[in-house]
Amino acid sequence: MSEPFVTHGSFTIERYYEASPARVFAAHADPAIKRKWFVEGDGWEIESYDCDFRVGGVETSRFRYQGGELMGNDTVFQDIVPDRRIVIAYTMWAGEKRFSSSLSTIEFKPEGTGTRLVFTEH
Amino acid sequence: MSEPFVTHGSFTIERYYEASPARVFAAHADPAIKRKWFVEGDGWEIESYDCDFRVGGVETSRFRYQGGELMGNDTVFQDIVPDRRIVIAYTMWAGEKRFSSSLSTIEFKPEGTGTRLVFTEH
Repeated sequence: MSEPFVTHGSFTIERYYEASPARVFAAHADPAIKRKWFVEGDGWEIESYDCDFRVGGVETSRFRYQGGELMGNDTVFQDIVPDRRIVIAYTMWAGEKRFSSSLSTIEFKPEGTGTRLVFTEH
Repeated sequence: MSEPFVTHGSFTIERYYEASPARVFAAHADPAIKRKWFVEGDGWEIESYDCDFRVGGVETSRFRYQGGELMGNDTVFQDIVPDRRIVIAYTMWAGEKRFSSSLSTIEFKPEGTGTRLVFTEH
């Protein structure tokens, strides 16, 4: 196994959605809706998805891609302001190896008749 | 109450300790040792300190400064490599208000007869 090492990075993604902040927020807050866009997809086998959407609550995903090794995403909700903001910390792993930890802030800003989503990750 | 807002920032702190990486790591890993430097101090009243030092484990501190409002620090351990690295996500609050969420990476690097500690926070 290679020696563990650390790198740091930050990025921001912005998207505009023709839907209200409440509706875009709900796509993150409602586990049934979030499961559809967050973990499901062609080639992905979902072993489990659980989401306890509250501050301090955890969201765990367990999945494989095309029969590959088991991967996971373990999230803890750090802050929730309804229709406005979600802050999460999450760590991802594959097999026995944790390969990333991130702090992400998702902001839902009213813009015209829709919503600007600003996603910032460190 | 003022409107919630978001700001982002990053910083790195480095310190050299004349002690082995194992000893400096233990000051973070052993709850009895960590409590001494992390939560105790003149003017601070500690209501509780609990630490479950393992990946996915939580560390919670509840304290007041000179009779002020209750404050808290809620940490989740994201990654632990013994004597080498600890990654944490933590949120701080005072009263009803959460005011910061951070991802911190603490690296313990052998240097000469001691340890260089590199603390990076986003």
